[in-house]
Amino acid sequence: MTAPAGPTPPVERAMRRALEASVAVHGATSPNPPVGAVVLDAAGEIVGVGATAPAGGPHAEVVALRQAGERARGGTAVVTLEPCAHHGRTPPCAEALLGAGIAAVHVAVADPNPLAAGGAEVLRRAGVEVTVGTLADSVAAGPLRAWLHAVRAGRPHVTWKLAATLDGRSAAADGTSRWITGPEARAEVHEFRSHVDAIVVGTGTALADDPALTARYPDGTDRERQPLRVVVGHSDIRPGSRLDAPDVLHLRTHSPDDVLKALTDRGAVDVLLEGGPRLAGAFLAANRVDRVLAYLAPALLGAGPAALADAGVGTIAGIRRLQVDTVRTVGGDVLVDARPAAG
Amino acid sequence: MTAPAGPTPPVERAMRRALEASVAVHGATSPNPPVGAVVLDAAGEIVGVGATAPAGGPHAEVVALRQAGERARGGTAVVTLEPCAHHGRTPPCAEALLGAGIAAVHVAVADPNPLAAGGAEVLRRAGVEVTVGTLADSVAAGPLRAWLHAVRAGRPHVTWKLAATLDGRSAAADGTSRWITGPEARAEVHEFRSHVDAIVVGTGTALADDPALTARYPDGTDRERQPLRVVVGHSDIRPGSRLDAPDVLHLRTHSPDDVLKALTDRGAVDVLLEGGPRLAGAFLAANRVDRVLAYLAPALLGAGPAALADAGVGTIAGIRRLQVDTVRTVGGDVLVDARPAAG
Ligand SMILES: NC(=O)c1ccc[n+]([C@@H]2O[C@H](COP(=O)([O-])OP(=O)(O)OC[C@H]3O[C@@H](n4cnc5c(N)ncnc54)[C@H](OP(=O)(O)O)[C@@H]3O)[C@@H](O)[C@H]2O)c1
Ligand SMILES: NC(=O)c1ccc[n+]([C@@H]2O[C@H](COP(=O)([O-])OP(=O)(O)OC[C@H]3O[C@@H](n4cnc5c(N)ncnc54)[C@H](OP(=O)(O)O)[C@@H]3O)[C@@H](O)[C@H]2O)c1
Repeated sequence: MTAPAGPTPPVERAMRRALEASVAVHGATSPNPPVGAVVLDAAGEIVGVGATAPAGGPHAEVVALRQAGERARGGTAVVTLEPCAHHGRTPPCAEALLGAGIAAVHVAVADPNPLAAGGAEVLRRAGVEVTVGTLADSVAAGPLRAWLHAVRAGRPHVTWKLAATLDGRSAAADGTSRWITGPEARAEVHEFRSHVDAIVVGTGTALADDPALTARYPDGTDRERQPLRVVVGHSDIRPGSRLDAPDVLHLRTHSPDDVLKALTDRGAVDVLLEGGPRLAGAFLAANRVDRVLAYLAPALLGAGPAALADAGVGTIAGIRRLQVDTVRTVGGDVLVDARPAAG
Repeated sequence: MTAPAGPTPPVERAMRRALEASVAVHGATSPNPPVGAVVLDAAGEIVGVGATAPAGGPHAEVVALRQAGERARGGTAVVTLEPCAHHGRTPPCAEALLGAGIAAVHVAVADPNPLAAGGAEVLRRAGVEVTVGTLADSVAAGPLRAWLHAVRAGRPHVTWKLAATLDGRSAAADGTSRWITGPEARAEVHEFRSHVDAIVVGTGTALADDPALTARYPDGTDRERQPLRVVVGHSDIRPGSRLDAPDVLHLRTHSPDDVLKALTDRGAVDVLLEGGPRLAGAFLAANRVDRVLAYLAPALLGAGPAALADAGVGTIAGIRRLQVDTVRTVGGDVLVDARPAAG
């Protein structure tokens, strides 16, 4: 049997397909990573596609191998994340790939988890040709981003989303704010909500806005997947308000790390911080924001509450610099997608 | 002689060349419009290129015709603005085109100035084939933009430029602000300054920042063209400060229209408002901002002065909506180039 050559267009195509499969389960797998896998037969034909099932269910490779059946023998597996080598709730994927007679494995991103890593090594020792790094950047920026961060940093990945005018206001002087950004931006936020494990706000936002913090479709109906709703602060949630519900987690603390610890204990790796200004400031001051999604309405207010309050910066040398990953228009608004600048 | 057909690729190419020629004189022609003109001979070859000379000098068509000489006969003139038909400081261009034996004229934008308009009509009556509208949108968005606005609105075109963080701060809590945006954004602003007729700030900015308000090259040396420097407000300019100079116009008023009137009297049609927050708010409240150039640094401060103060908006229904013309990155920053939304 000839081992296939290094990454070739068909392998890249297969990796894109695996990435797509992982997008479909994004948000449904935590604390497990949303992985996608494709199995090619010996002739390079796609014979199986799989993605991580919810925790406790089979991993992506196993789903794809089952679909491929006997056609996997002598074939190639293309997986977004290095196959695991440990016995968790399911037997290791490396073993499953060997059992199915896979001859070559292409991986996008190596597993940074010391418990699970080693799958590539196990496979290589068994004579399988293993290539790591195929489309690594695209995959690492995709559904795996939060999980990879959580494994490396030992805490969930935090995205802070803000909606503001070009002059940084999140409401008018009298507190009214419906709507600053347009329906397209709001729809994107609801889509984003459906992929995260938790949405976090401060008691200030809970009391001022009485938000539902659910992921909804544009027609207002609930999406299938709903993240955990979290309110942070010592104040009580108003009885009868939307967040006065048994499934809402109220954390009576001011410490971002306490919040992230409580969320880790509940299996969360991907957290969406939706404000308000003071809680966001506390997370920024503590270096606990990993991504900023700034939806900027091309509009001006000149007065009204700022989108961000005290973040511990007193002078220009302390400015929190970000680097822009993407800038694009969303409907009539502008989205700046950025992350803390290195260094 | 066969009249050439409607706009064809060579005519569009010539119009782009005329537009380029006008870009080169942008800022040097007020109160005259920065026009570009190209003359093609009967075979469609470019035989003359011209642009408006400083006020009192020849118009673009005349410059291009002189360059073309006898080769203009039976040829085509391609001009960004409808040729004038009035006797101002120079004889009308329509006459000059007829005298040179031009057979066809392509114009991008009709002259909205009732005094000068009618050039197309004069030419048509004399048997010249006149086409209006070639590349009209590109031309109207180019160097002619401010002049066209000034003629239509009866007051100069005002661009408000701001530099701020994503949370709308223009300085840190202690007032320090060097530098929020990067060198590329700052270089663009200096380039922009060199094309306008006047730069305007409030006394607050003059006193707080002691700005030079000159157009400089990145190495700090002055550019050839310097706009009029204007300070607005009742307070005195500090003796010995950079704006304490005989060529600085100090307008002791709080009325944007007084400011624009004084600038019109000095021949200005293109005004750059560089703040600060209060003066910009007053111009916005008076509907006297025609373009917003928001240089947004991907950075967060959480405290410090806002880029915009009171603009007369108290509730969300009064929000000043803009429509985005362009969003692009400039170095590490984001530029949102917008104008007031219609209606
Ligand atoms: N533009 C946007 O994207 C956006 C998003 C959300 C909200 N908002 C607006 O923000 C306004 C509310 O502002 P806000 O600042 O009061 O909201 P907030 O940040 O949601 O809530 C502030 C509260 O959070 C709690 N908290 C927890 N940890 C904290 C810490 N380390 N430091 C300070 N406080 C901490 C405190 O509650 P306790 O006092 O109970 O301990 C504090 O009073 C609303 O009007 C809302 O509309 C805007
Ligand atoms: N982010 C940016 O792009 C940017 C740009 C420029 C400045 N800044 C910052 O802005 C700060 C200064 O803020 P500022 O608001 O004092 O600056 P400003 O707007 O330049 O000046 C305010 C002054 O303008 C005069 N003025 C004229 N017409 C007015 C009107 N209709 N309403 C109110 N005032 C009028 C008043 O002067 P009198 O009291 O003398 O009558 C007022 O005190 C500085 O720290 C500077 O660094 C930021």
